[in-house]
Amino acid sequence: MYPYRHLFDFTREIFLNIGCPLEDAQLATQVLLEADLRGVDSHGVARLSGYIRLWEAGRINPKPSISIVHETPSTATVDGDGGLGLVVAPRAMDIAMQKAENVGTGWVSVRNSNHFGIAGYHAMQALQRDMIGMAMTNASPLVAPTHSTKRMLGTNPIAVAVPANEQPPFVADFATASAANGKLEILQRKNEKAPLGWIQTAQGEDTDNADELKQGGSLLPLGSDLTHGSHKGYALGAIVDIFSAVLSGANYGPWVPPFVSFLAPPADPVGQGIGHFLGAMRIDAFRPADEFKQHMDNWITSFRKADVKRGEEAVLIPGDPERIMTAIRLRKGIPLLPPVEKDLAELGKKLGVKF
Amino acid sequence: MYPYRHLFDFTREIFLNIGCPLEDAQLATQVLLEADLRGVDSHGVARLSGYIRLWEAGRINPKPSISIVHETPSTATVDGDGGLGLVVAPRAMDIAMQKAENVGTGWVSVRNSNHFGIAGYHAMQALQRDMIGMAMTNASPLVAPTHSTKRMLGTNPIAVAVPANEQPPFVADFATASAANGKLEILQRKNEKAPLGWIQTAQGEDTDNADELKQGGSLLPLGSDLTHGSHKGYALGAIVDIFSAVLSGANYGPWVPPFVSFLAPPADPVGQGIGHFLGAMRIDAFRPADEFKQHMDNWITSFRKADVKRGEEAVLIPGDPERIMTAIRLRKGIPLLPPVEKDLAELGKKLGVKF
Repeated sequence: MYPYRHLFDFTREIFLNIGCPLEDAQLATQVLLEADLRGVDSHGVARLSGYIRLWEAGRINPKPSISIVHETPSTATVDGDGGLGLVVAPRAMDIAMQKAENVGTGWVSVRNSNHFGIAGYHAMQALQRDMIGMAMTNASPLVAPTHSTKRMLGTNPIAVAVPANEQPPFVADFATASAANGKLEILQRKNEKAPLGWIQTAQGEDTDNADELKQGGSLLPLGSDLTHGSHKGYALGAIVDIFSAVLSGANYGPWVPPFVSFLAPPADPVGQGIGHFLGAMRIDAFRPADEFKQHMDNWITSFRKADVKRGEEAVLIPGDPERIMTAIRLRKGIPLLPPVEKDLAELGKKLGVKF
Repeated sequence: MYPYRHLFDFTREIFLNIGCPLEDAQLATQVLLEADLRGVDSHGVARLSGYIRLWEAGRINPKPSISIVHETPSTATVDGDGGLGLVVAPRAMDIAMQKAENVGTGWVSVRNSNHFGIAGYHAMQALQRDMIGMAMTNASPLVAPTHSTKRMLGTNPIAVAVPANEQPPFVADFATASAANGKLEILQRKNEKAPLGWIQTAQGEDTDNADELKQGGSLLPLGSDLTHGSHKGYALGAIVDIFSAVLSGANYGPWVPPFVSFLAPPADPVGQGIGHFLGAMRIDAFRPADEFKQHMDNWITSFRKADVKRGEEAVLIPGDPERIMTAIRLRKGIPLLPPVEKDLAELGKKLGVKF
């Protein structure tokens, strides 16, 4: 178990070491480690060396000049200048929230960025300002559209955070595939089978072999097959791709550059970097915030109290499991798998930072 | 087969007959029949007598005074005054688009409305103005959240329409349940089994009996079960409910009034009527519209050409099947099932309109 503070200091030193300004290093660390706190282990410090390898390959700019390239009172298009998504996305969210202060809502499409950590972090920034926050991003292609054998979309997550009054906020944060890639990685590591409906082979046959992804297979959209609505998951992933990248001028669909440094980006890009879409809506742009939040409390408690199936404890509200995990990990520390520990120790050694 | 014009004239007469002003009767007819044209038979003229029975029960106001009760430059909250959703939603979408003209985007949450037909119609209004359109609505509870046995959410659809250049537009329009209720009604009528993963019994067991819904069972969220991401479908349905009703002051969750006149609305409402959420984003609030639409063409054609599984013809773009169906039905007419023909003939007789 690693205390949050320990991982924070290490990660910040690493980001400082590659040339990030102090403020950016702090911010990137906070965003990255939010994943570890919330139990989304695939998106946290386990990815740190991946970001650094992209920097080594010249594919991440540690000192980006993030700029608004186009705007209206309620919108902006932001160029991330090849920076860490962990830094670019929070700045873009700040712009969205400022616009929401001014005209009720703010919507920012971002190009020329990189992986932004967990979508939930960015959406949640709106909560303290009595706003609804939204965040989505495209990602390197792993998901095949309905009927297809080709990886055309990333797991393209959507996060929506809604404030409540006495109840904790509603925080949905989910991939638009039937299972996020992080879950596959865990099965691969443990050499376990995957449930049918998560993956297909390169020929498009349903499979329980988690390794098929490495052999040309693909993830399936939320819904898994046409009968169960995979065309809806495909449409959701497509909407995320269009809002994040076609609106902003980033790469989309099969052109999204891979997160890993050993795979080259497509030679014929259709835009710059990867794309995000961030939104903020001021609650009191629709109705008084206290009235809304009291109704959200009622919404949340009525769902929490709904009858459950035999063997289940309660209906969960989106964000419940992550909030509980955060409380535990802040108290007891964050567990890291041995390969992650080894990877971080090597990374520290290379950059002269003690792990 | 009924010519579109025939069904149009009949439906408009019916709406005029219950007291709708001419303009409203025209509009309601156009919205309602768009479902029949697009092949969403469950949401079209087959529902006409249902709307009329709600009017007879005093639950639909044929002459609503639709008003903005709160607004900012990019938002509005609209009170539908108990009118037909078929009329209220297009007016609200007009407000959203006007705000998008002014400040880049417009977002309207609607309370005190009724069923608004197909979500896609409303989202598509944005296309001719080079805007992205969005529409969602809550509906009477049929879907149980993950772990629950209780119907807490409607099939709460989401529609997103995105303009392209030479390609037809991208139009996604889908329920956030694994199967829309209309599909169940078809199986019930034909006395056929449902696929597992669509419905559960009153005790929360998976079932293939399409009639379980009438015996306390419920529809399952998109994803069907927890392993395949039903918590994501539940979260999506919840987001639609919150944006449509908690933001506007409509009824939400289990309090949403039923569409059918023989079931009374809840005695302890938490808001007024049902709720919708409509949005419009001007493309050129982000980047020049012609540039965007050329990239949408590229997005669409690259997906359409993606490799398919053996036996499949092509990857479909959201909106393809409905567009093809519209062309066929405008040419060949709209088929109606015998019970629908009978129902419409009786309705016409009652109101003195020849079917």
